[in-house]
Amino acid sequence: MAIGKSVQRVDGVAKVTGKARYTDDFSMPGMRVAKYLRSSIAHGRVVRIDTGQARGLPGVDGVFTYEDIPKKIFATAGHPFSLDPGHTDVADRRLLTDHIRYQGDEIAVVVAENELTAQKALALIDLEYESYRPLVRMDDVLAEDAPEIHKRTRNIVKEHAYTAGGDYEQAKKESDHLIEGCYETQVMQHCHLENHSAYAYMDDLEHIVIVTSTQIPHIVRRIVGEALELPLSQIRVIKPYVGGGFGNKQDVILEPMVAFLTLKLGGVPVKLKLDREEGMIGTRVRHPFRVQLELGVQKDGTVKFINFDALSNTGAYASHGHSIAAAAAAKAHYMYPRAVYRCHARTIYGNFPAAGAMRGYGSPQMTFAVDCAMEDAARTLGMDPVEFRIKNAVKPGDMNQIGKRPIMTAGLVECIEKGRRLIGWEKKRADRPSSQNGPVRRGLGLACFSYLSGTYPVCVEVASAALILNQDGSVHLRVGATEIGQGSDTAFAQMAAETLGIPFTRVHLVSTQDTDATPFDTGAYASRQTYVGGQAVMRTAQQLKEKILDYVGIITGMNPLDLDIMDGNIVVARTPGTAVMSLEDVAMDAYYDKNRGGQITAEVSYKTRTNAPSFGCTFVDLEVDVPMCKVKINEIYNVHDCGVVINPLNAEGQVYGGMAMGIGAGLFEALMIDPDSGRIYNNNMLDYKVPTIMDIPDLGAAFVETHEPTHPYGSKSLGEPPVLSPAPAIRNAILDATGVAVNELPLNPKTLFRYFKAAGLI
Amino acid sequence: MAIGKSVQRVDGVAKVTGKARYTDDFSMPGMRVAKYLRSSIAHGRVVRIDTGQARGLPGVDGVFTYEDIPKKIFATAGHPFSLDPGHTDVADRRLLTDHIRYQGDEIAVVVAENELTAQKALALIDLEYESYRPLVRMDDVLAEDAPEIHKRTRNIVKEHAYTAGGDYEQAKKESDHLIEGCYETQVMQHCHLENHSAYAYMDDLEHIVIVTSTQIPHIVRRIVGEALELPLSQIRVIKPYVGGGFGNKQDVILEPMVAFLTLKLGGVPVKLKLDREEGMIGTRVRHPFRVQLELGVQKDGTVKFINFDALSNTGAYASHGHSIAAAAAAKAHYMYPRAVYRCHARTIYGNFPAAGAMRGYGSPQMTFAVDCAMEDAARTLGMDPVEFRIKNAVKPGDMNQIGKRPIMTAGLVECIEKGRRLIGWEKKRADRPSSQNGPVRRGLGLACFSYLSGTYPVCVEVASAALILNQDGSVHLRVGATEIGQGSDTAFAQMAAETLGIPFTRVHLVSTQDTDATPFDTGAYASRQTYVGGQAVMRTAQQLKEKILDYVGIITGMNPLDLDIMDGNIVVARTPGTAVMSLEDVAMDAYYDKNRGGQITAEVSYKTRTNAPSFGCTFVDLEVDVPMCKVKINEIYNVHDCGVVINPLNAEGQVYGGMAMGIGAGLFEALMIDPDSGRIYNNNMLDYKVPTIMDIPDLGAAFVETHEPTHPYGSKSLGEPPVLSPAPAIRNAILDATGVAVNELPLNPKTLFRYFKAAGLI
Repeated sequence: MAIGKSVQRVDGVAKVTGKARYTDDFSMPGMRVAKYLRSSIAHGRVVRIDTGQARGLPGVDGVFTYEDIPKKIFATAGHPFSLDPGHTDVADRRLLTDHIRYQGDEIAVVVAENELTAQKALALIDLEYESYRPLVRMDDVLAEDAPEIHKRTRNIVKEHAYTAGGDYEQAKKESDHLIEGCYETQVMQHCHLENHSAYAYMDDLEHIVIVTSTQIPHIVRRIVGEALELPLSQIRVIKPYVGGGFGNKQDVILEPMVAFLTLKLGGVPVKLKLDREEGMIGTRVRHPFRVQLELGVQKDGTVKFINFDALSNTGAYASHGHSIAAAAAAKAHYMYPRAVYRCHARTIYGNFPAAGAMRGYGSPQMTFAVDCAMEDAARTLGMDPVEFRIKNAVKPGDMNQIGKRPIMTAGLVECIEKGRRLIGWEKKRADRPSSQNGPVRRGLGLACFSYLSGTYPVCVEVASAALILNQDGSVHLRVGATEIGQGSDTAFAQMAAETLGIPFTRVHLVSTQDTDATPFDTGAYASRQTYVGGQAVMRTAQQLKEKILDYVGIITGMNPLDLDIMDGNIVVARTPGTAVMSLEDVAMDAYYDKNRGGQITAEVSYKTRTNAPSFGCTFVDLEVDVPMCKVKINEIYNVHDCGVVINPLNAEGQVYGGMAMGIGAGLFEALMIDPDSGRIYNNNMLDYKVPTIMDIPDLGAAFVETHEPTHPYGSKSLGEPPVLSPAPAIRNAILDATGVAVNELPLNPKTLFRYFKAAGLI
Repeated sequence: MAIGKSVQRVDGVAKVTGKARYTDDFSMPGMRVAKYLRSSIAHGRVVRIDTGQARGLPGVDGVFTYEDIPKKIFATAGHPFSLDPGHTDVADRRLLTDHIRYQGDEIAVVVAENELTAQKALALIDLEYESYRPLVRMDDVLAEDAPEIHKRTRNIVKEHAYTAGGDYEQAKKESDHLIEGCYETQVMQHCHLENHSAYAYMDDLEHIVIVTSTQIPHIVRRIVGEALELPLSQIRVIKPYVGGGFGNKQDVILEPMVAFLTLKLGGVPVKLKLDREEGMIGTRVRHPFRVQLELGVQKDGTVKFINFDALSNTGAYASHGHSIAAAAAAKAHYMYPRAVYRCHARTIYGNFPAAGAMRGYGSPQMTFAVDCAMEDAARTLGMDPVEFRIKNAVKPGDMNQIGKRPIMTAGLVECIEKGRRLIGWEKKRADRPSSQNGPVRRGLGLACFSYLSGTYPVCVEVASAALILNQDGSVHLRVGATEIGQGSDTAFAQMAAETLGIPFTRVHLVSTQDTDATPFDTGAYASRQTYVGGQAVMRTAQQLKEKILDYVGIITGMNPLDLDIMDGNIVVARTPGTAVMSLEDVAMDAYYDKNRGGQITAEVSYKTRTNAPSFGCTFVDLEVDVPMCKVKINEIYNVHDCGVVINPLNAEGQVYGGMAMGIGAGLFEALMIDPDSGRIYNNNMLDYKVPTIMDIPDLGAAFVETHEPTHPYGSKSLGEPPVLSPAPAIRNAILDATGVAVNELPLNPKTLFRYFKAAGLI
């Protein structure tokens, strides 16, 4: 049995030996290099552009400006697509622009025989701007007299409002205490290892092939089709290994441009790759949120209502902006589902890099607000914060207040209890002096989260898989779902091995997706792949198994219903150990017998119409050096209910990575943008503080296994969840240590200094 | 309706504009170049080799000799594989050799950072030979004291003997005349436009990816596995566009070596490509045949028996040699099936480049022998050669004398009659002076052929196809069968369009095969693809159509049995013109409805258990300049019964190409090998006389359409047949013009001079 085993990643050796090939490891003879001309100002308009000298430079194949591109205004958000005309993404950009909306906006593109020539050509482009007032601060964006970043929007992308789970006014009346707070989160960048890279070429006058580092090849195909107004069948997208995406590659950024360029240049291969500095501004960032949160609690610790009022800034272009605040609020509901939820979210534009999808998709921001407010509430009531969470935490059978569906599995209480044991909550609290006044003070904190497994019922959830029985009795598994470093290929191979009854090592996972041939799937996002893709893999493996056993019936004359596959051999089902024949012999007969058989394959495309919330929490023990405004984490644990753990080792790895990212969000990372000029200060890995191995303490990952009945292997999401709760847990522990509630991220010395000074600590 | 239409080739624009990408048009960063060290002698042994200096040259990654390679002795012939242990290919080679068997044999291989360095390294390898007596002439090979080219073979690869269709001795007794002749054919080379090229790399420590110009990607996978003793599932073969193969790429030549090299060098990409000079000796050539033919005829023109005794020389290595003479004899039976057939064929080794598969697979040689003897018989009897052929030609319902199966469709008589009309046989014969004595003499000739459609029941015949319904209502069609220039992609697209009921332009054919993902098919050989592949395409299209109509039933509540697809729209079957919805709307619903559907795809793997002979003839009108020993063709026609013609324009193109190759075989081409030294004189396109546009007259192609009931679209083979009959037709016309029976090929001035001189004409 392969499920629940820590089998080695199918791509592990390839990746640690450096053999795995990523988009930029491929090239083609005659490949041209494209480079963007990016604006040096954050808000304005190009009033004059002269590309004559650049076009004349030897080695330059073409210079294209906002004047040379398709008129089509399109949306880049990597959503599957909806048949509902009211449920579409916000189309607000063209391939290039004369209206500058952030420092780095794409005005023109040069194609040349090599990078140096392209850079020289960029320098030869002469242009003149007209400048507008940059809008970075939320209040500036919303000011009455603010210039419009996008016409006829009043700088508002979208507004959502709803109440669920009861009557808000009534709940407010029934509350004994109102806890209010304003919680602010920062602009962050994904900082995936592999920068954005894509190239395109044509084999004929019709079909465009795009090789790209993406999470969503089939969606790239659709959006390129929309942007260039081409039928989808003329576009082919190939995804090699991807070195991380974290949502930044759930947006369609470079692909429409390389497709446009090869189309314009008669099919020659054109590559566009961003270096780190360019990628940190020219792709996507995380939305900064400002959440006004109001919590109503009763004396006994019952939370009666949670009232969010969120302002989310999506930067220069909508990207995923319109859906992030609403999605985050919806996913937070599951954590404390017996409270009334009131949600109001507005997403606005701003003159800084476009914010898009990033691990957690708004939930880190929401979780920071909710679980800081929860901490504040516990303290207001004088309750143990752990007990307070347990009192309000989801229990199996609770209802999802928005969809009115019962929550089948919910291990949050057990997660909290496990975290409390792991960190030694009671003992540490008991051992601690009643008050701390020294320079270094110790604190304990926790925070909880809830998340979902996919997007149903908001979006269509479709996944497909295909299996081929090879001559040697092994199988090739192709899935539309994409490996982007998270380990999905390994999980799928385990599932196929489990259902087929063959050793895990006999499953060859085809990691590359090719939209001309790979079964359809919308890709890696929303922590959907194990949950949604698993449905397709299980059904495909079942179908292949049936076909194999039917064929053994033809060979042997036995009843296929009496047969089974165990450890790669056909056996008599009720007489374990009675081998009938090997899978290799079945395969060889099917391939090569002259009078029967044929290649045995299976393919299933399946729509998942369920969703399952996953839960968990972070517990942290830390020290605050008050004069230095520095935080040192002593111990930190994440405990997850992600259903059945398919691969404990990989699940731990996923949790460690997410925790490190969450600690980065909590303590270090912020893309710094000058609020007056829109200038970006630190779009590089020296000045943008991603935590290194030196900054990350020993991490603890633990699981509470539930068996989710809506999933064939009992599993739920684990991709994004680990990032959600570390930051609020750290904030709550700093509050525990110092008595200061620091309500903005990151909790770096610069922020802490301001708060500690205001609190009189320094 | 798409069948029978001259639709534009799906790859036409790509190829004429130069956009189509072939193996050598792809590259990878860090790709290394491999080059062979080839022997300068034709027979001998390497007694000392020193690669030290070569290994030390900067930029050299590795030098491998016959000492460094796997011990495994393997076969290169691109046959599908047989479960019968008695039916295997002749394994007689390793990756490299110290036993030199032809001038050019592979002794060592160098891998370097570029071609120049590789060449320099080759020059630094020091070696010493021991020489043996080269065996080129058939009699030398078979001499009692001949050294063995392969140990324990006595230089004989294989011997076949059988009699079919009756009692040979009885038929001999019943014959009034015995016609005997010895017919000899030359060594030829395929001269496909695209030279052999392959590269391999690894993404991990296990799987090898090979990109190669091949006709048979799935067989390459098998043979590389056998050569390197690796499981097939660890090998992935990708075939881009191929610039012709003609059977030379039905052998597995470069692929095991590039796979071995990337494996040895830790996965780095290694490319091996042969230039023209190297390719003309280092790949495969056509077997020279010497056929002793005996024909028994009665006075009324009835052929009672045909007795072949063929000697075929396969050169240095067996390759396909063991099967070619027998296969050719078997296919010739269909032409005149009421005669007794006696066949004895021996295949021997020789010290010249290995002979392998080449368009016609022995049939050009056999057809030359049989239809020259038929001409000689007609002349012996004093019968009109046309009437003599018609009298003996196959008729529908005749039995195949080997398999004892009835021949369902046979348009040979109609082909002969049509050819006679086209060339104006009667009028030209009537107008001609009764004797010709001038320097330029005119002659008329014909020759007939029969061929098969695939290899059943000798080999397994399996083909598979897959279809995807795209969002825009078009489909992607993937077939395991390979486009190698012959137009099969277009034929398959026409078939899919026909059965699906959609316009031909809505079928997107995925031309590249990838063994990890492409449905299984053994590839392009034996003129099998339209006949065998068509079975799979038709069934896959039917399956997709059923799935589409079933889904329309789900959407609309209508009975799927009442629905049909016409011109890309769903219609009510019995009320033409009543559109229900467009295919695009069906597809969008299937992809994106949240609660039903899924991607609609179909895949079928099908084994064909029939075979169908195709027939035809060449008629030629030519002049012989006796003093100059030169032949000028005035008119030439090929008439084919290939069943239903799927695409008349492409079929004509196929016939023109084959005729040009047949004329080349008849008049010009020969790879010249010194019979004493084994030295090859003309392995280049200047000295090897492939006919150019200046050498080829206007060609005429005509068809007699039959409807083959064993094929879903009524079609039979047309790939190889056009090459079969031009050479004997030309020989027969020269006989008609001069009275001289020239029984060896090519009929170039050098040969004719010898014959004319012997006949006293000059």
